[in-house]
Amino acid sequence: MKYGHFDDRKKEYIIQKPDTPYPWINYLGSEEFFGLISNTAGGYSFYKDASKRRLTRYRYNNVPIDAGGRYYYIYEKGEYFSPAWAPQKSNLDSYQCRHGLGYTIIESEKNLLKTEMKFFVPLGDNIEIHQIKIKNLSNEHRKIKLFSFLEFCLYDAEDDMTNFQRNFNTGEVEVDGSTIYHKTEYRERRNHYSFYTVNQEISGFDTDRESFLGLYNSFSNPDVLKTGESNNSIAHGWSPIGSHSLEIELNAGQEKEFIFQLGYIENKEEEKWESKGVINKNKAKKLISKYNSSDKVNKAFKKLRKHWEKLLSSFSIKHPDPKLERMVNIWNQYQNMVTYNLARSASYFESGISRGIGFRDSNQDLLGSAHMIPERVKKRIKDLASTQFEDGSAFHQYQPLTKKGNDKIGSGFNDDPLWLIFAVAAYIKETGDYEILKETVPFNNGKKATIFDHLEASFMHVVNNLGPHNLPLIGHADWNDCLNLSAFSEKPGESFQTVSNKDNSPAESVMIAGMFLTAGPDFVHLSRKMNKNKLAKKAEMALEEMKAAVNKYGRDDEWFVRAYDYYSKPLGTKDNKYAKIFIEPQGFCIMGGIGLKDGFAEKTLDSVNRKLNSEHGLMILDPTIKEYQINMGEVSSYPPGYKENGAIFCHNNPWIMIAETIIGNGERAFEYYSKIAPAYREDISKLHRTEPYVYAQMIAGKDAASFGEAKNSWLTGTAAWNFVAISQWILGIRPDFDGLKIDPCIPAEWDEYTVIRKFRGCKFKINVKNPKNINKGVEKIFVDGKEIEGQLLKTHDKDESKVEVIMG
Amino acid sequence: MKYGHFDDRKKEYIIQKPDTPYPWINYLGSEEFFGLISNTAGGYSFYKDASKRRLTRYRYNNVPIDAGGRYYYIYEKGEYFSPAWAPQKSNLDSYQCRHGLGYTIIESEKNLLKTEMKFFVPLGDNIEIHQIKIKNLSNEHRKIKLFSFLEFCLYDAEDDMTNFQRNFNTGEVEVDGSTIYHKTEYRERRNHYSFYTVNQEISGFDTDRESFLGLYNSFSNPDVLKTGESNNSIAHGWSPIGSHSLEIELNAGQEKEFIFQLGYIENKEEEKWESKGVINKNKAKKLISKYNSSDKVNKAFKKLRKHWEKLLSSFSIKHPDPKLERMVNIWNQYQNMVTYNLARSASYFESGISRGIGFRDSNQDLLGSAHMIPERVKKRIKDLASTQFEDGSAFHQYQPLTKKGNDKIGSGFNDDPLWLIFAVAAYIKETGDYEILKETVPFNNGKKATIFDHLEASFMHVVNNLGPHNLPLIGHADWNDCLNLSAFSEKPGESFQTVSNKDNSPAESVMIAGMFLTAGPDFVHLSRKMNKNKLAKKAEMALEEMKAAVNKYGRDDEWFVRAYDYYSKPLGTKDNKYAKIFIEPQGFCIMGGIGLKDGFAEKTLDSVNRKLNSEHGLMILDPTIKEYQINMGEVSSYPPGYKENGAIFCHNNPWIMIAETIIGNGERAFEYYSKIAPAYREDISKLHRTEPYVYAQMIAGKDAASFGEAKNSWLTGTAAWNFVAISQWILGIRPDFDGLKIDPCIPAEWDEYTVIRKFRGCKFKINVKNPKNINKGVEKIFVDGKEIEGQLLKTHDKDESKVEVIMG
Repeated sequence: MKYGHFDDRKKEYIIQKPDTPYPWINYLGSEEFFGLISNTAGGYSFYKDASKRRLTRYRYNNVPIDAGGRYYYIYEKGEYFSPAWAPQKSNLDSYQCRHGLGYTIIESEKNLLKTEMKFFVPLGDNIEIHQIKIKNLSNEHRKIKLFSFLEFCLYDAEDDMTNFQRNFNTGEVEVDGSTIYHKTEYRERRNHYSFYTVNQEISGFDTDRESFLGLYNSFSNPDVLKTGESNNSIAHGWSPIGSHSLEIELNAGQEKEFIFQLGYIENKEEEKWESKGVINKNKAKKLISKYNSSDKVNKAFKKLRKHWEKLLSSFSIKHPDPKLERMVNIWNQYQNMVTYNLARSASYFESGISRGIGFRDSNQDLLGSAHMIPERVKKRIKDLASTQFEDGSAFHQYQPLTKKGNDKIGSGFNDDPLWLIFAVAAYIKETGDYEILKETVPFNNGKKATIFDHLEASFMHVVNNLGPHNLPLIGHADWNDCLNLSAFSEKPGESFQTVSNKDNSPAESVMIAGMFLTAGPDFVHLSRKMNKNKLAKKAEMALEEMKAAVNKYGRDDEWFVRAYDYYSKPLGTKDNKYAKIFIEPQGFCIMGGIGLKDGFAEKTLDSVNRKLNSEHGLMILDPTIKEYQINMGEVSSYPPGYKENGAIFCHNNPWIMIAETIIGNGERAFEYYSKIAPAYREDISKLHRTEPYVYAQMIAGKDAASFGEAKNSWLTGTAAWNFVAISQWILGIRPDFDGLKIDPCIPAEWDEYTVIRKFRGCKFKINVKNPKNINKGVEKIFVDGKEIEGQLLKTHDKDESKVEVIMG
Repeated sequence: MKYGHFDDRKKEYIIQKPDTPYPWINYLGSEEFFGLISNTAGGYSFYKDASKRRLTRYRYNNVPIDAGGRYYYIYEKGEYFSPAWAPQKSNLDSYQCRHGLGYTIIESEKNLLKTEMKFFVPLGDNIEIHQIKIKNLSNEHRKIKLFSFLEFCLYDAEDDMTNFQRNFNTGEVEVDGSTIYHKTEYRERRNHYSFYTVNQEISGFDTDRESFLGLYNSFSNPDVLKTGESNNSIAHGWSPIGSHSLEIELNAGQEKEFIFQLGYIENKEEEKWESKGVINKNKAKKLISKYNSSDKVNKAFKKLRKHWEKLLSSFSIKHPDPKLERMVNIWNQYQNMVTYNLARSASYFESGISRGIGFRDSNQDLLGSAHMIPERVKKRIKDLASTQFEDGSAFHQYQPLTKKGNDKIGSGFNDDPLWLIFAVAAYIKETGDYEILKETVPFNNGKKATIFDHLEASFMHVVNNLGPHNLPLIGHADWNDCLNLSAFSEKPGESFQTVSNKDNSPAESVMIAGMFLTAGPDFVHLSRKMNKNKLAKKAEMALEEMKAAVNKYGRDDEWFVRAYDYYSKPLGTKDNKYAKIFIEPQGFCIMGGIGLKDGFAEKTLDSVNRKLNSEHGLMILDPTIKEYQINMGEVSSYPPGYKENGAIFCHNNPWIMIAETIIGNGERAFEYYSKIAPAYREDISKLHRTEPYVYAQMIAGKDAASFGEAKNSWLTGTAAWNFVAISQWILGIRPDFDGLKIDPCIPAEWDEYTVIRKFRGCKFKINVKNPKNINKGVEKIFVDGKEIEGQLLKTHDKDESKVEVIMG
């Protein structure tokens, strides 16, 4: 069952039923001001950091599920309705929500009133615009009222929902004309406030939640809407809100437009006050005036659309399969940008409280955005590197507001260091900018270092932390956060992510070994580029030794072992009772070049197909773990089929897709791709539940009661890795240090496709033909009509080049 | 405006309108299982610790305000209603909620169905009983359905509302007959589960929230109630709930009764499972069978009532003023028991997340419960002492589940140590049990110590931490948590409670000096009792020196100074711009004996009356602080009139009442008492907002927009201190080391009152006569007809004694 459809031309997903299987959301903003918005205008806004600078209040896991948002009510003659369906669940005559790139438009009709509400954050400013058009479709002159509503959060999201003894006493506002200023704690240490305004004279306002709603009412039946009269309430403590009322007269057929703005302002300490107790509103007024007319707003919206057009123009495909096109051209890249912006901090599954920017997470995410925003990727790499310790390990997370490592989550995830190599290599492969290696970014302890020093520390962190089988020590955990081989947790509720009861645990990770072998050659290359030949040699030796260790200790009969536990017993082998096979090392060891010559890679991938494949994708392990295993940790804490205990953990499926392309199996690579790519799952939206336009972190596995149900959409490394798999390995347009490699591995039935790829200043129009209907192999490549040697498109001076690729 | 009335005979408050100005709540349970319940059945339940072992889910500061609870729905012929008003806000024909001592009864009528729902936790068991009677008032035979609903919390309340990535995947239940077992995480480290059952065969059930409610519905309009058919859903992740449906047939006039139980079970590790994946239900079944009939439940309820009758029988008064009677005899003592049980952990203003058992808080609370539960008080003293450091300082809070100090809140509140002396002295004065001093309770570091050693450490902590004026260093803060003289916080959102930017701050507290002088003589007495005469001498000298320091540096012209700040400048003097006078030192310095001879006490209390008195009680300071003062901290962060910045902070009003009784001003003492005692404020319930039967922590002060509005009811030291003030100092029935002192200080117009006081095994019936209509002074006391010397009733062997007191 579908709840909408894709509009590929407008690059929108159009939702046609408001009661989607879960709220289907979008993100507003892509710089410092962000909003989450559901298909019925639920959600919240924040500045930079969803935890520390939350601007509007939202209640997670509430009843109803999506309660709180940017709510508008239209009032006429004692009746009212919500043009966005929520909160009243109004019985609308028509409804559609168009989630686009950085904007959302909700359109509806009721009582012969047509409403269009466009939500977006303009580029360059900390403001969220709600552009609302109301049209009288009747033949009569009408008087209506428009009420706005949003609830302010007292900035610190966690404190806001726990510390009522204080928070019910601090709320303060000012109202000046049509603008409501939320200034809680501005009287003391905050030098920032938010405001909510409309570009019209208002007939009334409310700033106290109870005055507007009534204590025992829900958002759907506010007291004020019963009378249609605002109370002009001023909040003193309790819960400050912003609500305007506007009296609107509409002739038959007439349309009027209103610009609401939610903004965020910071003042310097010495410029905080206009007069005693009255906040300085200069910056707010200036900002408001930038967007106080339809013309200005329309212009800003056009600019935003152009911005996204440009971002997406770096990679696009023409292909007979529209699902593939919309995934590659629009939604996967869009999701990559969102994960770049938000990391894992705030979605409808991430409460925005506890997670900041992850070292692993964001380094991985960069793999999916380097081609769109190389400059910002470079900046992020430097931010991430600055939270690395001198020994190569890193703070697992940092807070975006302060860019300081988050002590609560700690460190010791031994895969973390390597992701920096992946990210820097991807950046250089995209840009050719080796200069980044020489840029200075101190370690977390302040010690001066270059980016290359960071990479060396990363590489050496593995070399310096080997276990009894010469495999990398896993530390607290590797990429699989939930495989906690040193936690041995017995205490209920204890976080598996931070506890570690076994000092100097010898537990080892074959996955990290595979990662090391995958990233290692790039590190060797970069070392040579830095003229560190001795180091390069040393690194090559380390890689050889790791290869030997994996070959000796990392192979089970038919697949790769996952890890060695605290007792140095192997996990992920046929001799284990549960979890005989894990997905992670299978992908990475083959990417790292193991088993390619002796058929073990093929055998392994056949095992994956046999053991882990399902109609909804590849499961993370098999068989699922039926009882808690103290030596394995969180992975065994989940009911079978969920999360790391046997769900389809979408993030790692592309590793297998890539491995399949390496051995030339384009059928399977694409089969796996299309099983989890959301556009291909649109028809089963009711089962899938989360948005059909973005990846979810997981889909419940075959042992789950809800097999096929997705959870944790939007903020997942799934986005970046799937884009890498489809663009670089299946479609085979792969940036490399010395050029753009053309190496498709596709289903044999594909005859042809064309990719436009901007790469180092040149727009390559790459037409791939598959006359023999094979999976892999390039017979000839013509660049601007001239055949080239090999499969590498070199950088050149032309702005555009036509490339013909003949497979064979 | 009133919303109900007191029923003094039944010891209940009867609420007659469901939409009270704020949810008016009650507490169920008084041992290890607790429930908060509002007048419309909202609230939640937990085992021991509202933070770490939350059994049902509740959303604070929600819309509507009180969402989530023990919800029942009655369904008949396609229609349904909520007999408790919530969640449907049903238009009931009649409604009343009776909050009693440890139980709540909600009765209503609608559609000729009479429903009575009684909620209580029986003594000795971890179970909450919902006894529901439904009577058919019509003349027709009827078929109805009863639906139950409650939502399980995943035990850790904070994690439950932030960590959805995990928590949406872990939920697990079992259904066995009429019992729903909530077993999330039981598969791993939890060895406990909860259950929800009913003593009847059920026609259906639901355990998955969405299946029962529907994703976009609220509690008021569940999907299941639309059809009247349960889905028999089994929760897998997301949000487990418990809901039963019962088909009920009622003849004309017939009543039926149903016993629902919400219980908590812990199993030993080796007894966790009945069979693979199936939890061991033996203990649950045993517990269920204890309360599965009306007879058993009625018996348990009677036992509970007797228990409370007995608790309250230690102190009761007969007096012409019913408001005084109900405060003293019922509600103040009841609130004391609740603060004993819950400390500050969970109310409708305390989210139950961040606060455990406070060292200061609970030591103070014991002053109000020592006469009721001396044995439990003794136990609590030992728990508290065990979190004390060897130098006398203490963890400011500990978690009730683990009894370990809470690192997050830290220590350094320099009043903390002294409260232990107050508590132990109160215990000994009540019981005469000096043996407690010899009991062994190690310090937090494990070092062996006796309770007396703890007291010595407490006393010496003050002596060893004096500042430049020989006054006690304030440390992080004293009783006024918000007077943070060493915080100097500039960072927005930083907790004033933990930050300290000034090392070795010389800031001093005159209030601690007053406390020291108040508790000091008791410490001297106890030292002598322990034959520590040298120590006693030393202590006396320290007290003399403190007295001298207060006299020299602690007096302003007309009142006591509050403190010296980081710069050694005085705070709370006429020379300050704001907060020229604080309430705290005025009460404590006079209780400590300063200014009694030279008229300064009178002058001070006149100043208090002139500067701090208002129609709603005594404000904490004056004038309120208009701008943030970095050297004063949180006190200046509140808008004027709220909280510590000039509200009526009810907790400290009794200190002034006591001081007034010391100088003999019974008029003012009682004036202050009656201004804040909730029963006296019942008529202004709409303004007061919180419950008219229990104290609130604060009432907004005269500078507040909402002057007279109370906040933070129930869990406040206000309860204990007001009981001390009224019972010991105004009514003048005061336990002392050697007996019960009789020393009333009352309004002159009072002619007579009688107090029944159980004291060390004897029930004293004390009749006080005031023939000359004076405030203070005792002319004669007769015990069992015999006049005694002095004002002290000595312990004796009789079970009962009649005491006649003639004032004069």
